[in-house]
Amino acid sequence: MSDDDRSRELLDLIRTRLTAEGLEPGRSLDDDAIREIVDDAIQAPSSFNIQHWRFIAVRKSEDRERLAAASYGQRQVADCAVTFIVLGDLRGIEKLPEAMRRAVEAGALSERKAEGWIRSAEAIYADQQLARDEAIRSCSLAVMNLMHSAEARGMGTGVLIGFDPAAVKREFGIPERYLPVMLVTVGWPVRVGQQRKPRFSVDEVLCFDRCGFDPD
Amino acid sequence: MSDDDRSRELLDLIRTRLTAEGLEPGRSLDDDAIREIVDDAIQAPSSFNIQHWRFIAVRKSEDRERLAAASYGQRQVADCAVTFIVLGDLRGIEKLPEAMRRAVEAGALSERKAEGWIRSAEAIYADQQLARDEAIRSCSLAVMNLMHSAEARGMGTGVLIGFDPAAVKREFGIPERYLPVMLVTVGWPVRVGQQRKPRFSVDEVLCFDRCGFDPD
Repeated sequence: MSDDDRSRELLDLIRTRLTAEGLEPGRSLDDDAIREIVDDAIQAPSSFNIQHWRFIAVRKSEDRERLAAASYGQRQVADCAVTFIVLGDLRGIEKLPEAMRRAVEAGALSERKAEGWIRSAEAIYADQQLARDEAIRSCSLAVMNLMHSAEARGMGTGVLIGFDPAAVKREFGIPERYLPVMLVTVGWPVRVGQQRKPRFSVDEVLCFDRCGFDPD
Repeated sequence: MSDDDRSRELLDLIRTRLTAEGLEPGRSLDDDAIREIVDDAIQAPSSFNIQHWRFIAVRKSEDRERLAAASYGQRQVADCAVTFIVLGDLRGIEKLPEAMRRAVEAGALSERKAEGWIRSAEAIYADQQLARDEAIRSCSLAVMNLMHSAEARGMGTGVLIGFDPAAVKREFGIPERYLPVMLVTVGWPVRVGQQRKPRFSVDEVLCFDRCGFDPD
């Protein structure tokens, strides 16, 4: 086990984070800061490096009000610095040849391996359910990165799945191929004394060697 | 923007991480360390705090060989310290009343709010597709936490979705209700000079205010 500062600081952040229920309304975040946070988010891994993730940064208060209305009136969507609509590209596979071209160019992958990856990925993601699964999976990995990045910069974050996807798509001009996977609020925390919701214990969610969880 | 050590150390880790293609075979990880990493992973947020995630830590070399065979022979599944089979409970909603009972007991939520959450969650997750979506979403958030936790401790990690779910379920006694979402390898990195695969640029995956991504 490493016991250096890098370890302690990060582990402390992972262990103490909580969904910020109160963020400061009216304090914005500049576009460069938004870009930096997204740039951290997209360092997450994804299947074949397809990178299904897309982000809409909803900056303006009136737009966040519309988004809050499409989220059953949840105020935190409006009362923050920026809310990200995180989209999974259900046809992400179509961008894989371009991603692979750049990886080969950067010397991260051989041309032969890249061709093999494209063939395998196309076979897998012809299945619409698997394409949806991966869009959600890679977006979620990126979102956890996004939250850590914002929190390391002193901000608070919250993730929401309680919204009407059809309304969000209509209000923000989102084409059919993009699945709204989550909303992530980012801003400066104002509420104090909020309590973390307890988790099931490690031994309730961890088995060794073989599955020992409830069959039914 | 915060510019303290906590910020720098974590951001450095987020930006430099890569999937470890080479992990030291034969060097194990003790059970307490496995528990610590999982305990960090499960600090991730989840829908209504349902916590769909479950983990099987595959410790023994012969078990990881079976898992590698169910993963189209991918060697990294066997050649590491531990491989986690990350499972999403498709019937996670059934555990929500217990999670809520504990949250109320801990003072993190009022009884009235907890009852409202249970009703809302039951209405949403009666839809099997949404239950599957959330199982994948919350597992993935936890997995990114798990990787950061292991990496902060000096380990390397890799995430794999290339496996035969039916074979994995059969080999490890996994009941129907648990969806194998990912495999995560953890161990000590041995290969050096590996290159990160380039990401699409921020401006290719980020829009402001409104969706401007390819409609087709």
